[in-house]
Amino acid sequence: MLGAIEAGGTKFVCAVGDEKGNIIDRVKIPTTVPEETMAEVIAFFKKYELDAIGIGSFGPVDVNLESPSYGMITSTPKLAWKNFPFVQAMKDAFSVPIGFNTDVNAAALGEATHGAAKGLDSCLYITVGTGIGAGAVVQGKLLQGLSHPEMGHILVRRHPNDPYQGKCPYHGDCLEGLAAGPAIEERWGTKGINLVDRQDVWELEGYYIAQALMQYILILSPKRIILGGGVMNQKQVFSYVYKYLQEMLNDYVSLPELSEYIVSPGLKDDAGITGSLLLAHQALTEA
Amino acid sequence: MLGAIEAGGTKFVCAVGDEKGNIIDRVKIPTTVPEETMAEVIAFFKKYELDAIGIGSFGPVDVNLESPSYGMITSTPKLAWKNFPFVQAMKDAFSVPIGFNTDVNAAALGEATHGAAKGLDSCLYITVGTGIGAGAVVQGKLLQGLSHPEMGHILVRRHPNDPYQGKCPYHGDCLEGLAAGPAIEERWGTKGINLVDRQDVWELEGYYIAQALMQYILILSPKRIILGGGVMNQKQVFSYVYKYLQEMLNDYVSLPELSEYIVSPGLKDDAGITGSLLLAHQALTEA
Repeated sequence: MLGAIEAGGTKFVCAVGDEKGNIIDRVKIPTTVPEETMAEVIAFFKKYELDAIGIGSFGPVDVNLESPSYGMITSTPKLAWKNFPFVQAMKDAFSVPIGFNTDVNAAALGEATHGAAKGLDSCLYITVGTGIGAGAVVQGKLLQGLSHPEMGHILVRRHPNDPYQGKCPYHGDCLEGLAAGPAIEERWGTKGINLVDRQDVWELEGYYIAQALMQYILILSPKRIILGGGVMNQKQVFSYVYKYLQEMLNDYVSLPELSEYIVSPGLKDDAGITGSLLLAHQALTEA
Repeated sequence: MLGAIEAGGTKFVCAVGDEKGNIIDRVKIPTTVPEETMAEVIAFFKKYELDAIGIGSFGPVDVNLESPSYGMITSTPKLAWKNFPFVQAMKDAFSVPIGFNTDVNAAALGEATHGAAKGLDSCLYITVGTGIGAGAVVQGKLLQGLSHPEMGHILVRRHPNDPYQGKCPYHGDCLEGLAAGPAIEERWGTKGINLVDRQDVWELEGYYIAQALMQYILILSPKRIILGGGVMNQKQVFSYVYKYLQEMLNDYVSLPELSEYIVSPGLKDDAGITGSLLLAHQALTEA
């Protein structure tokens, strides 16, 4: 049996199941401080006989196996979790192989294996919510280089009619600074959920996301793009993304029909936890 | 013995040698029309007993083995070469395995194997010249998804003091439209080679290239970045790239010392032809 943790900034989802994505038990635990949250995580898993555990974590995290800080959450603004040795904490409690990656890389793996990119050796998973993050499967493997991707912070061009200065503490008006949920709220004075009928809100959102997708496509050439996260529950954003992406790319690269190429998660809200089960399975087979 | 073709828009370099990058003969052939250029290419290689041939070609090309147009140059503005079946033309003349990829992916492979990224399983090679293109090695393999990357056409933010409208026929002021050689010439009224002492020219160039590198780093996280091509012979551009990249990234991701992370090609002008020899070697070992 496999254990999985989808560690988010507001809650941890823990599950036990198998690599086919079957989940037999799950629990949600609030993200408070490591001592508290981890005690509940460990108590949940102690009920089961596990063969391996996979972790898809909020970040930034150190995923470089050769690094002394491998398995740690590194420079997160959630200060209680800064430099938290996530993998070590789990190893101390369970002597099984531990897989570890970012939450969005886990989601990309989940979608490539059992979701909207099933059967493809390449996909990009993007979440647009409290923050913007992305993970990718490239030629069958989770994308990794010097570190994991940080695609939410790429630069986009400000819309000429958008005076909002942006909300990213590092870059101001990068993609996340202009298009994540908190930016929508600050720009328009109320949460996105209260702006459902305002087409201008979602058109601007689509404009920024389309720019990001253009960069991702030209750099990575993914075989499918999956757009998830709370903001993307406003389905009208998709049509603006298609419209602006078409205009900006101007047929320079040939893509599949956009409505089949850029889609919602096939696993809905379970992309991350399913991917974390797969990380556990990978850790087990590589152990 | 291996054959290699570095097929560029103005000339073809053909070489025979081995996978260690040793070259025992080479020739330069002008890129005119396929009948003429290919006749010379074939005549050159017919002098040798070859085991395999590798091609690194200008593009766009179709590198998808499952595609009916695999091995073709596709939608190039060089009309005589549009839809030219490059791999088939070589197969008709030589019954040996043929490796095929973009010129910049070949150069990335050359640099990762024998050049400035030797020993690393990840690098990004960018050429800034008549056009801007990039290739990448990711986890030991040439980056490929739906197609090969087209990184030269990503969007950048116009510098507030740069009124130049850009030169890309597809996107106007994309990276290539603002920062390739022809854009420099049109903006400043003379070729870059006549502007060596104009620091404002190279500072602006560094500003645009730094923006591009920021996107590449956040999306791909390469372990080393190699900046080649004619424009990068103006070595002063590097210091502006370091300066602006530092400012823009604002310590969001931790990188090695920039002067060791972003470097000139270790193989100088031979990155592409060396990579093409390696493509030949790969074709041979996979045959």
